[in-house]
Parts: sequence; C-alpha cells; structure tokens
Amino acid sequence: MADEAFANLDHDRARRTGLPEVIFCQGKTADQVVEIVGRMWQREGRVLATRASEEIAQAVLRAFPDVRYHAPARILALGAAPPPGEDAPYVAIATAGTGDIPVAEEAALTLEFLGHRVQRIYDVGVAGIHRLMERKDVLCRARVVIAVAGMEGALPSVIGGLVACPVVAVPTSIGYGASFGGLAALLAMLNSCAPGVAVVNIDNGFGAAVLAHKIVRGSD
Amino acid sequence: MADEAFANLDHDRARRTGLPEVIFCQGKTADQVVEIVGRMWQREGRVLATRASEEIAQAVLRAFPDVRYHAPARILALGAAPPPGEDAPYVAIATAGTGDIPVAEEAALTLEFLGHRVQRIYDVGVAGIHRLMERKDVLCRARVVIAVAGMEGALPSVIGGLVACPVVAVPTSIGYGASFGGLAALLAMLNSCAPGVAVVNIDNGFGAAVLAHKIVRGSD
Amino acid sequence: MADEAFANLDHDRARRTGLPEVIFCQGKTADQVVEIVGRMWQREGRVLATRASEEIAQAVLRAFPDVRYHAPARILALGAAPPPGEDAPYVAIATAGTGDIPVAEEAALTLEFLGHRVQRIYDVGVAGIHRLMERKDVLCRARVVIAVAGMEGALPSVIGGLVACPVVAVPTSIGYGASFGGLAALLAMLNSCAPGVAVVNIDNGFGAAVLAHKIVRGSD
Amino acid sequence: MADEAFANLDHDRARRTGLPEVIFCQGKTADQVVEIVGRMWQREGRVLATRASEEIAQAVLRAFPDVRYHAPARILALGAAPPPGEDAPYVAIATAGTGDIPVAEEAALTLEFLGHRVQRIYDVGVAGIHRLMERKDVLCRARVVIAVAGMEGALPSVIGGLVACPVVAVPTSIGYGASFGGLAALLAMLNSCAPGVAVVNIDNGFGAAVLAHKIVRGSD
Amino acid sequence: MADEAFANLDHDRARRTGLPEVIFCQGKTADQVVEIVGRMWQREGRVLATRASEEIAQAVLRAFPDVRYHAPARILALGAAPPPGEDAPYVAIATAGTGDIPVAEEAALTLEFLGHRVQRIYDVGVAGIHRLMERKDVLCRARVVIAVAGMEGALPSVIGGLVACPVVAVPTSIGYGASFGGLAALLAMLNSCAPGVAVVNIDNGFGAAVLAHKIVRGSD
Amino acid sequence: MADEAFANLDHDRARRTGLPEVIFCQGKTADQVVEIVGRMWQREGRVLATRASEEIAQAVLRAFPDVRYHAPARILALGAAPPPGEDAPYVAIATAGTGDIPVAEEAALTLEFLGHRVQRIYDVGVAGIHRLMERKDVLCRARVVIAVAGMEGALPSVIGGLVACPVVAVPTSIGYGASFGGLAALLAMLNSCAPGVAVVNIDNGFGAAVLAHKIVRGSD
Amino acid sequence: MADEAFANLDHDRARRTGLPEVIFCQGKTADQVVEIVGRMWQREGRVLATRASEEIAQAVLRAFPDVRYHAPARILALGAAPPPGEDAPYVAIATAGTGDIPVAEEAALTLEFLGHRVQRIYDVGVAGIHRLMERKDVLCRARVVIAVAGMEGALPSVIGGLVACPVVAVPTSIGYGASFGGLAALLAMLNSCAPGVAVVNIDNGFGAAVLAHKIVRGSD
Amino acid sequence: MADEAFANLDHDRARRTGLPEVIFCQGKTADQVVEIVGRMWQREGRVLATRASEEIAQAVLRAFPDVRYHAPARILALGAAPPPGEDAPYVAIATAGTGDIPVAEEAALTLEFLGHRVQRIYDVGVAGIHRLMERKDVLCRARVVIAVAGMEGALPSVIGGLVACPVVAVPTSIGYGASFGGLAALLAMLNSCAPGVAVVNIDNGFGAAVLAHKIVRGSD
Repeated sequence: MADEAFANLDHDRARRTGLPEVIFCQGKTADQVVEIVGRMWQREGRVLATRASEEIAQAVLRAFPDVRYHAPARILALGAAPPPGEDAPYVAIATAGTGDIPVAEEAALTLEFLGHRVQRIYDVGVAGIHRLMERKDVLCRARVVIAVAGMEGALPSVIGGLVACPVVAVPTSIGYGASFGGLAALLAMLNSCAPGVAVVNIDNGFGAAVLAHKIVRGSD
Repeated sequence: MADEAFANLDHDRARRTGLPEVIFCQGKTADQVVEIVGRMWQREGRVLATRASEEIAQAVLRAFPDVRYHAPARILALGAAPPPGEDAPYVAIATAGTGDIPVAEEAALTLEFLGHRVQRIYDVGVAGIHRLMERKDVLCRARVVIAVAGMEGALPSVIGGLVACPVVAVPTSIGYGASFGGLAALLAMLNSCAPGVAVVNIDNGFGAAVLAHKIVRGSD
Repeated sequence: MADEAFANLDHDRARRTGLPEVIFCQGKTADQVVEIVGRMWQREGRVLATRASEEIAQAVLRAFPDVRYHAPARILALGAAPPPGEDAPYVAIATAGTGDIPVAEEAALTLEFLGHRVQRIYDVGVAGIHRLMERKDVLCRARVVIAVAGMEGALPSVIGGLVACPVVAVPTSIGYGASFGGLAALLAMLNSCAPGVAVVNIDNGFGAAVLAHKIVRGSD
Repeated sequence: MADEAFANLDHDRARRTGLPEVIFCQGKTADQVVEIVGRMWQREGRVLATRASEEIAQAVLRAFPDVRYHAPARILALGAAPPPGEDAPYVAIATAGTGDIPVAEEAALTLEFLGHRVQRIYDVGVAGIHRLMERKDVLCRARVVIAVAGMEGALPSVIGGLVACPVVAVPTSIGYGASFGGLAALLAMLNSCAPGVAVVNIDNGFGAAVLAHKIVRGSD
Repeated sequence: MADEAFANLDHDRARRTGLPEVIFCQGKTADQVVEIVGRMWQREGRVLATRASEEIAQAVLRAFPDVRYHAPARILALGAAPPPGEDAPYVAIATAGTGDIPVAEEAALTLEFLGHRVQRIYDVGVAGIHRLMERKDVLCRARVVIAVAGMEGALPSVIGGLVACPVVAVPTSIGYGASFGGLAALLAMLNSCAPGVAVVNIDNGFGAAVLAHKIVRGSD
Repeated sequence: MADEAFANLDHDRARRTGLPEVIFCQGKTADQVVEIVGRMWQREGRVLATRASEEIAQAVLRAFPDVRYHAPARILALGAAPPPGEDAPYVAIATAGTGDIPVAEEAALTLEFLGHRVQRIYDVGVAGIHRLMERKDVLCRARVVIAVAGMEGALPSVIGGLVACPVVAVPTSIGYGASFGGLAALLAMLNSCAPGVAVVNIDNGFGAAVLAHKIVRGSD
Repeated sequence: MADEAFANLDHDRARRTGLPEVIFCQGKTADQVVEIVGRMWQREGRVLATRASEEIAQAVLRAFPDVRYHAPARILALGAAPPPGEDAPYVAIATAGTGDIPVAEEAALTLEFLGHRVQRIYDVGVAGIHRLMERKDVLCRARVVIAVAGMEGALPSVIGGLVACPVVAVPTSIGYGASFGGLAALLAMLNSCAPGVAVVNIDNGFGAAVLAHKIVRGSD
Repeated sequence: MADEAFANLDHDRARRTGLPEVIFCQGKTADQVVEIVGRMWQREGRVLATRASEEIAQAVLRAFPDVRYHAPARILALGAAPPPGEDAPYVAIATAGTGDIPVAEEAALTLEFLGHRVQRIYDVGVAGIHRLMERKDVLCRARVVIAVAGMEGALPSVIGGLVACPVVAVPTSIGYGASFGGLAALLAMLNSCAPGVAVVNIDNGFGAAVLAHKIVRGSD
C-alpha cells in the first residue's frame, strides 16, 4: 500500500473548525505515525499526537529530536501556539486523586499547545471537601473548569454547584471492581444533579481540552 | 394448598438475630399478607410489612384497623417498640433530593418501629454543598448516618469524609436515561473514595435501617 | 411532614451559578410542585419546571393560570427573561428525526426562558446528508449547536466536523431493540470521532440548554 | 487423539453454499492448522486461514513457503480464484480511520481470494464529511459497499443514505473507554437510520467479505 | 410550529437509493402521521408506514379509507408496486416459532409493497430440525433468505449452512428472562458460525426487507 | 393466513424425545391457542399450555370446560398421565421464599401432568438455614431436587452440598433494584460452588420440570 | 499461617454427595496445591485437580510423578475409579468446533476419572448440520449428552430436539467481538427452544461432567 | 511538577473521621509512594498502603526497611496501633474459599494495624454448610463479621441469618466465565435475603475493614 493511501489528512480542518488536525496514535504503527508527523510538520508547522506509546514516542523522537513527550499522558508535541498573556482567561483543571493526573495532563498539555493558560488543582476529591473549598476562588474565576475523576466521579457535581462557568467532566478508569474501567464515573457524571455538566469519554483528556478550547475561543 | 404451607415463619429469628421477622409483600397476594399479619400479631405483638401496595394496604386495614400505612414508603406497621428517650443516640437520615424521600422514610419508619431515634436531613444534594455543610453538626453527632441518593449518588462520599461514624449508602432509582434504574448511583456508592461506606440494594431503605439498627444496638 | 421540610430551596444559586433554581418534577407529587412553584414565583419572579406530567401540569395551571405548558416537552414556564435582540448570538438546535423534537423543544424552551435566541433545524438526520448540508450556514454562524439524535446518534459527529463552535450532543431514547433506551446513541456520542463534543444524559434537553446558556453567557 | 479426529472438514460445503471451507485459527494449535492446511490444499487447491497469529503463520510458512501472510489482517492465503476482469463489478471497502484498515484488509484479501475486484476507500470518517463526498462516485457505482468503522460507527449510516446498493457494516474495536471493545460502533450500526444496513460481528472483516461475495455472485 | 417544519421529507431519496421514503411512526403523533401520509401520497402515489399503533392506524384510515393495515405487524400501506410475475425470483422468509410471525410479516408485506415475490416458511425452529429440512428445496432456490427467530436465535446459522444465497437474520424479542428483550438472539446471530450472515436490529422486519430488496434488485 | 399455516405441530416429538409437544402461549393470540389445543387434544389425548394469560385461559375454558387452570403459575392442563404409585421416585421442589411459589408450581404441575410424584418444600431460604435443615431428609431421598430462588439465588448451592442427586436451579425474577429481573440469581446459580448444578432460564419452571422428567425417566 | 488453616477439606463429601472432593486450582499457589494433593492422596487414594496452570502442574509432577496432566484441559489426575465395562451406559460429548475441545476434554477426563464411559463427537457445529446427523445414532443411545459450543451456542438446541435423554449445555469462550467471552453462547443456551436443556457456567467442562455423573449414577 | 503538588495530604482526616489517611497505590509511581510514605511517617508515626505491587513494595522497603509487606494482600504497613487486649471485642473474618484469602487478609491486616482483634475463619463456603456451622459460636460472639466470597457470593446471606451483629459482605473476583470479575457475587450480596447486610466494592478488603473499625469503635 502506498504511503499516501493510509491516511487521508484533512488540511482544511483548521480553517473549518478552528482546530488543527491531531494524530490519534492508537491502532497506527510507529512508521505510520512518523510519516504523518512529517507531513503535518511541513504543512502546519506544529504537530500534536495523543495516545502515543513509549515505542511510538521513541520512533518519533529519532526522526524529530525537538519533539516533547510526556510519558504518563502519552502525548507528543512539536511546536505550539504562542504562549498566552499573564492575564489571559484560563482553564482550571481539577482532579479527584493523584491517579487521575495523567488524564488531566493530557488535557493541560493540549490546551497549552493550543495557546491557553491553565491552572492545575490536583487531588481535591470530595471525601475531603475542604481541600476543594480552599481552591474555590481559583475555580470561580476560570473561564471553563475541567473536572477529572475516577471511582465515584462526584467531583464535577460539586464543582458544578460552585461555579458559573461551564464544567467539562472527564471520567477516568482509575478504580477497580465495580468501577468497570471507568463506567461508574461516566454514569455518575451523566447523571449529575448539577445541570449543564458536559461529559466526554472515559480517559479522554484530549477531548475535554478541545471542548474547553472551543468554549474559550468563542468568548474572546 | 393449606394456609400454613405457603409461609414458613421463622419465629426464632428475633432471639437469634435480634430482629423480628418482617413481611416482604412483593410477590404475595393480599390474602397471604393478611393471613401472615394475623399470625405474627398474635405471636409477636408487633408487625412490620414493607413494599405493601395500595391494594394490600387496604386489605390489611380492613382486617386490622389500627395498622399505620405510609403510602409513598409503602410500609405498614402495627404496634412498635417503646419510644426512645430524648437523648438516646440517633440515626441521621440524609437525602440528596425530594424524590429520594420515600426511600428515606422506609428507613426512618423502620427504625422508629424498632425503637430508635431518627433525625431527618432532606434535600441536601452535593450540587448545593452549603446546604449539607449547614447540617454538619447534626451529622457529626449521629451514631450512624444513612445517606440516600439517586442520580450520581455522590452524597455518601461527601458525608463519609465529614463524619467519624459508619455511613450507610442507599442508591435510589430517581433519575432517568443513563441512571438505568439506580445503577449509576449504586456503582458510584460502591466506588466511593471515602473508605468504609456500607452499600445496600437500590431503593432498599428497609435494609439500611436494619443495618443501622444492628450497628446502634451493638454500641449500647 | 411540614411543607417546608421536603424541599430545601437554594435561593442563592442564581447569584452563585448564574442560573435560577429549576423544579425537576419527577418523583414529586402535584401538591409539592404547586407549593414549590408558589415559593419560587414569590421570590424569583420566574419559574421553570421540567419533566412535568399532564397531571402535574393541570394542578399547576389551576393555581397559576398564566403558566405556559408544552406537553410533548413536559415543560412548564411562568415568566421569563426579557427576549433577546434580533441579532443576539443564537443557539442552533438540530434533530436527526421528528421523534427527537420533544427533547429538542425542552432545550429550546429552556433557552428562550433564559433569554436566548434559538434557531431550530429539525429532521436532518445523516441518512440524508444533503438535508444537513443545506443548513450548513445556519449551523456555522451559531454560538453553540445542540445536536439531538436517537438511534445511531451520528448527527453530532457530522456537525462537529463542520462547525467551529462547541457542539452539545443529546442522545434520545428514540429507537427500539438494540437502542436499549438511548444507550446506543449515548455511546456513539461519547465515542465521536469529532473531538470536543460535549455529551449530556439521554433525553436531557434541559441539561443541554443549561450548558449552552453557560457557554454563551461566558462569551458576551 | 488421532489427527483425523479433531477437525471434521466439510468438503461438501463449496458445492452446497458456494464458498470453500476456511480455517478459523483462533483456539487451534499451530500443528493443527498446518495439518488442516495440508489436507485442504490437497483436496481443494486453494486455502484461506483467518485470525492467524504470527506464531501460526510462521509454522505454516515453514511447511508451505508459497503461502501469503498479511500480518495486520492476520490472514493466510495459498492459491486463489482467477483474477477478475478489469470491468468486473466491484466491492467498495471504506474505513472511517487508519486504525480500521486491518479489518478492512481482512475483507479485501478474502474477496480477492474469492476472485472479486475491490476498491479501497480508506480514512473517510464522518467528522470530515467532504472526504467521503469526494469519493461518492466510486461508492455509487459499487455492487456492494463494506463500511468499516470503530468509535461511533456512523459511516454506514451516511453511506447508506448515498448509495442504492447493499451496505455491509463492520464495527471495529478501535476506540477506548466507552467504546467497550467495539460495542458502541456495533449498537450504532444496528440502529442505523438508513434502512437496510447489514451488520456483522465486531472486527469481522471476513464475514463481511463472505456476505458481499454471496450478494455479488447472486447478481451475476 | 408550522406543519411543514416537523418533517423534512427527502423526496429525492427514491432516485438516490432506489427506495421510496417510508414513515417510521414511533415518536410521531397521529396528526403528524396523517399529514405526512397525505404529502407522500400526493407526490409518490404509494405510501408505507411502519410501527403504526392501533390509534395511528385508525386516524389514517379515517383520512385514507383505502389504506391496508396489518395489526400484528403494525404496518400501513397505500398503493404498491405492480405485482411480480409468477416466476420472478423470490425471497424466502422463515420463522423459528409462531410468535415471530408479526416481525416476519413486517418483512413480507414490505417486500410485497416493493414488488417482490415472497415465500413464507413459518414455525421451523431448530429443536425440530426435520421441519426445516422438509423445506430445504424452497430455501435453496430463494434469491435471499430472511431468517426470523427469538429465544436462542439459532435458525440463521442452520440455514446459512444449507443455502448459497445471502441470509438476513432478524432477532426478535420473543422469549423471557435471559433473552433480555431479544439480546440473546441478537448476540447469537452476530456470532453465527455460518459465515456471511447479515444481521439487523431486534424486531426489525422492515430493515431486513429493505436489505433483501437491495440485494435482489442488484441481481436483476 | 390459513389456520393450518401458523403452527407447524411436531407430532413425532413424543416418540423422538419422550416428551409430548407443549404450547408456549406467549406471543400467540387466544384464538391460535384454542385452535392448537383442539388439534393436540384430538391427536394426543392430553394437552399442556404454559405462560397462559388470564385472557387466553378464559378462551380455552369456554371451548374446553374440563381444562384445569392454575392462575399464578399461568398453566393450563387437559388430561394427564396416569398418577404415580405412592412409592414412586419423587422430585423435590424447594423455594427460597413465598414469592417464588408460582414458578415452583409451574414445575410441579408440569411434572404431575407427566406422571411424576412431587414433594413441595416451600419458603426455606438460606437466611434461616435451620428451616432447610429440618427438611434435609426429604431432600436427600429425592431422585432430583428443583431449587427455585430469586434475590441472591443461594439455595441451589446449599442444597447441592447436601444431596447426592442432581440439582436443577431455577432463578426467579423476585427481587428489586440490583436483582435486574432475576439476573443476580441467574449469575449466582451459574457460579455455584457446589459442582454439577443444572441451571435453566429465569422463571422457567417448565424447563426445570422437563429436565427433571428426562433425568427420572432415564433412571427407571 | 499454619498449613492446615488455608484449606478446610471436606472429607465427608464423598459419602454425602457421592462425589470426591476436587481441587479448584485458580487462586491457589503451587505450594498450596501440592500440599492439598498430598493430603487427599493419603486419605482418598485418588485426586483430581482442575484449572491447573502449567506452573502448578510442574510443581505437582515433581512431587507426584504418577500424576497425569492434560495441558489444554488444564486437568491433573492421580489414580481413578476402575474402568467401566464395554457395554456400560455412556455419556456422549459433542463440540461445535475444534476450539471447544479443551473444555470438552475437561468434561471427558473428569467423567473417565469417575469411572464412566465416554463417546467423543467433535466438530459437528450447526452450520454443517449433516455432520451432526451422521452421528445421530451415537447421540440417541447415550444416557446423557454434553453439548459444548462457543460462538452462537446453537448446538444444544438442535441436539435437544433429537434425543430423549438429558442434554447438558456448556458455553465456551471461543469467539470474538460480540461473543463477549462466551456470554452470547451462554444466553443462547439459557433460551434454548428445546425444553429441558441444563446449562452450566462458561467453559465449565468439569461442572458438566459432575452433573452427568449424578444423572447416570442415579439411573444405575 | 514539584513534589508537593501531586498529593494533597489530608492530615486533618484522623481527627475528623477517626481514621488515619491511607495510601492507595494504584495509579501512583513507586517514587510517589515512597515520597508519601516518608511524609506520613514523619507526621503520623504509622503508615498503611494498599494495592501495593511487588515493584512498589521493593522501592518502599529499600527506603524504609522496617516496613512489613504481605504480598498476596498487596498491603504495606509501618508502625501500628498498640495491640488489643486478649478479651477485646473482635471482628470475625470468614471466607468461602481458599482463593478469597488475599482479600480477607487485606481486611485482617488493616484491622490489626488499627488496633483490633481479629478471628479468621477461612474456607467455609456454603456447599459444605456443616463447616460453617461448626464455627457458629465464634461467629455469634463477634462484634462484626466480614464475609468474603467470590463465585455465587452466598456466604453473607447464610451468616446474616445466624448472627445478630452487623455483617459486612466483600465480593471477590474469584471465579470465571459468568462471574464477570466478581459481578455475580456483588449482585448476590446486594440482593441478600438476610436484611441488613453491608456491601463494599469487589475485592475491597480494606473498605470492609474500615467499616468494621467504625462500627466497633462506636460501640466502645
């Protein structure tokens, strides 16, 4: 199969949706990813790749030594948007636990790649509600809050009752037994008693970041 | 079938488990329930029946006019333990919403039938966390807290982080769509990040009350 | 139980989250709803109630003849925000089929109650993709698009590839057999290949509207 | 156990169903597969084996060096039907993404083994609908379209609304989280709003090819 | 809402996909169905409506007395294609049990409406395999076989091993307990050991008919 | 449709499988059932029909006044095998609760219709294990034990550890919430730690009886 | 923990249930299994262990060189009952495919260990029904038939309609995608239209053998 | 990320909930766990860590040689509460099988770390009910019973009918096939016919211990 046949790049996407095309590495070989990174780098001048395994990352790093790789978040970046001003609106990213951080970092690094300011508020799960309350001010001044949680997935409901801005809920697969790979957190978030919580797929930090990006950009 | 054949009453149960036998009405005819109420009333001097439909309640009321029936909680009581003293230890029962109250009342009325003091704290769901915080003192002084919630089922996690006593979590079928009849709340409670939360079946206010009864009695 | 005990109104919510409290009727009696409508009308000057059955609607209409009731959407409104200007930013609401309209109307009427301009684009499912393409302009100029679909739930993915603004996906329970009450559409939307789609619960037009409201308001 | 006991070859099948027997390797040892390949090669003069692991492929290659092995599609072929004419009717095979290609190739190679002409249209997922529209002509002139997609599985619905020929939908396990191993795509395809979409099992490129073969052959 | 707004008829569909638009009644009011029937009758000269409840059927019959209604199959037809010749190719429709007949009739009546010849082979489930074997000739001469079965859904696997033509499998919701509304039959059909079985949604006789129609038409 | 077309009676079944054909009423109209009862009565001299609704039973009773109908078990019988001798081997049928009795009676009446002796042991659930132990002798002398239980479905495991004969486990849909219509009991029985427990479908008293009949008959 | 504490052998079981205790190796360490084998060998003179991994088997073989190990069936045996006579009643074991043989062998070897005669009928799946029909005589003369099948699990239904003796159905995890680890076959077997099929857990060849043993022994 | 950022220790928790903070190792790196152990050891003088893999345990042991590691239970402890008196109230921990012991030990070691007396009653599953009955006295004198079981999960129901104290049920993932990773046991326990059984997550020995600790402490 000719190289150009396996990936049908949509170079028009940035113009159409305001978002550059991003490489989803799962199900692709290392060679395929290296090839696509090359094509996008030439054409767009910046590249983001998600769900990049250690093996894929090594292959890309050999070809493009300037690539930045964040192993727990499995994210690869080459180039980026210009950094935001110090008082630019920011996206707050909160996690319930330490184990949720890789998913939160996938969101944070995507947002920073797209030129946004990010505030990290990690390990503020609802079983110690005062830890969350101490950060209420940072949450309330955000333009969007991304709430990342596994287990019972209650964090977005509590935050949704505190802040006026949109809340994006990311269930994670942290948990065991009856968490069923993040299903428990996902269902909880879909059933949030705080109205207007936006839910994305399990462990989908990237999708949460894109949604936040679209919300913030529309408000500039 | 002879009357005595269909129900195999376990009169020894009170001595053995400290709990009188209780009639679970689902799947029984009105005639069967009336018959069993009569036998238990003669022998035990107090009767409790749960999941009693309107039709069953009317049949029992015709035979035993002193029966008390609470329609939303579908519970029937005849006689009761002597009431507790004013400073007896109490069980706090909290609900996330108004729709969870029938299940909470099934628990409350069972506990009162068994001679316990109950404090009701209703409609304090986590999307308005300050409503819960205002009742923190009542929660913290309880011997057991029963937390009743549908939808995302987050209430027990937050309470479990506030109080030192055991928390009994009751998922309810309040919700729609991806709540799947209470499954979302059930899974959330089983995955609570607050350790040591006891979970019972969906809508099982009675089971929560019996568990609380056993905990309180062991502590006297 | 005293009237004031069953509902713990959160009058501070509007100030805190920018959204007036709304009555979720499921699991409440008609008397309870009438009572809460009265309290909110006195205090807030506008009232919205969702999931209102025919029976509840009749009870409220007897007490408050000015209430507007939309039966398929099961929504009750009394008062509203002032209407938006003709060139205010708008929310586009698209449905895949005719059967999805009640859920779309729950969203549309909620948004209009909150003072937003709405554009309805109904019956543009993906099996006749040209119907959607003919409305591409209206979609692309929206501040937010709410995409409502049952069955295979593909509409948000296609719209998400066309527009730059945030897309809120609402799965509906329209379908049969392996749609499992909207589960098929819900899973499809969570797995959208268009990044940044926000998903809410099955049939949750109200939640989609609140999310859109928060996004639009942040951008004013 | 004697060699002849473990596999009960159905040599009459080709005559009865128009399809030679094919070896499903999963759950068989390498030795068993080599043995069956030998028997079928002797008797039929062509052999196809699916779900062949790397280890099985190596064992067969040692015994039959002429075997062709396609690793991502896990398919082994020895001999084939004569190639089709240049203007024979063809089967179009479309994939939503790059990750779906191995399943598509299982279908394509099976069809080519059976003597059919195949047109590959890869990476035309619905989030960039114009990529699909550009290939509309190739799709519309096909005798059958096989649409292969993971994630939300929307591709068959869109194609089903464009073409007049039968559409065979193959869900794949590409995705994560709430894709539940391809369940999301499977349910979406079963609920397609485009009537008359034929669905096969998750990742079952072989089954889709056999179905297409039966449809095309009946139309000659 | 203006009448013309709720349904976005796709009059071009017949030309594009070879299939006239058909009304799916579920989720539509009787008034809406009557209105759409009228518009389609004027424009197309024949109308088919599926999932029509008794109430909808009565409303349509009052407006269009020539409509034919088949209550168990819930199907409404007005006009039809010209009848097929006596030796036209036919579609065989087999059911496992008597309870599966309404779904089979939805398929049969749709095919006859579209101008096809149909052979009905009912109540030939696999627990009495000789009943199926006695009809083997009729099955083997069909251009397509539609196999309709609830419970364990084994019929398509057995037929798929007997005939050379495509087999369309329709799971039905006949069964109880662990049939889970047709899920058992659906999963069985998707996992058929007879390769090349096409599966449609539970109880989707209409979809099976459309698929058969496309297959037969392509072979003329 | 001609009367003879809708049901394909398998009069040879009794000879082949030792079991007369039985009418499964679900999904059949009252007229169809009456017609089939008539044909079987003429030919076989005894008739059994299961899952017969009140409405069907009334229709059959009007046509065949000698029919015996057991409403909770929804079973109809006309004629029967000759009664067994007093010391014939027997099948013991145990239930966990009172609510399981209708399913147990479906089994008991089927066995009696087929000429077997039955011992009923009702309401001996495992939470009062001494009630079961008191009947240990009757259980241990049975040729087969049928154990009927809803809720946690533990009864077959305990009995399976007490007796040497085969145990047939019947899960029932008695329960609520996380019993999911009998799924909890079904899964428990399939996972019994007592080896050699035979499981049938939820609420399938008839199937259990047929299995017991085949076991007992083989041992005569 | 003292050696004797971790396993509470039930030496009385053989007398009580007619079945010697058998070691279920899953979840036990190799040392624990060796220890238990030793104790049982001393006391009972024969030992059977199931679900024995390669590692456990090697450890046991080092301690007891006479042990027989069947790797695909993961079964270990030491000693056995005396072999049956040539015309003893037999159990027929049928499989749908080659991949189901390890589960069938777990059943066959268990039965032979217990002193039964076994007839193996392998690879006779329903997509080539004539292969099954050719073995009809062996099936019909069996005292019990064990039918082992993955994928759509249809084999027990077809056999159940052919033979008069009890049929024990064993679903296997052979399959992929929507087989969900054997769930599809399990549900199919529970919903068999052939009445009186006994179902055991997925891949539970041992359980099927014990059930067959109890049935045959009761009939001697 | 600075060390102090990734874990937001809640040092106030012991005062607030009577339970020291415990490290949940899943999703944390070895370095993170070592760091947190150090901080907690300094501040609290005792440390407990659960779900600690072999790799994490080795890293902690290198830094803190006094740590005690129990590999099957995956639990790490450093320091402990003073040991209880010989006649302190105790918690009885029962398991159904040998494979359930690691989960039981997670509970037992946690309780001993917290200063409680524990009685272990292992391998007393319900298929040999007399083994359980022989230990009835130890069970009946306990302050709490923790019942640990996989497979059909029946143990808590039987114990719940024997004792007057609270029963905490822990489902385990021991089993295969239709145990679905412990789901069968979980559902059984939630549906226990013995009222007042407290259920925790699958394999959650730690949670059961914390619940027992809270119950016992409240009763001192």
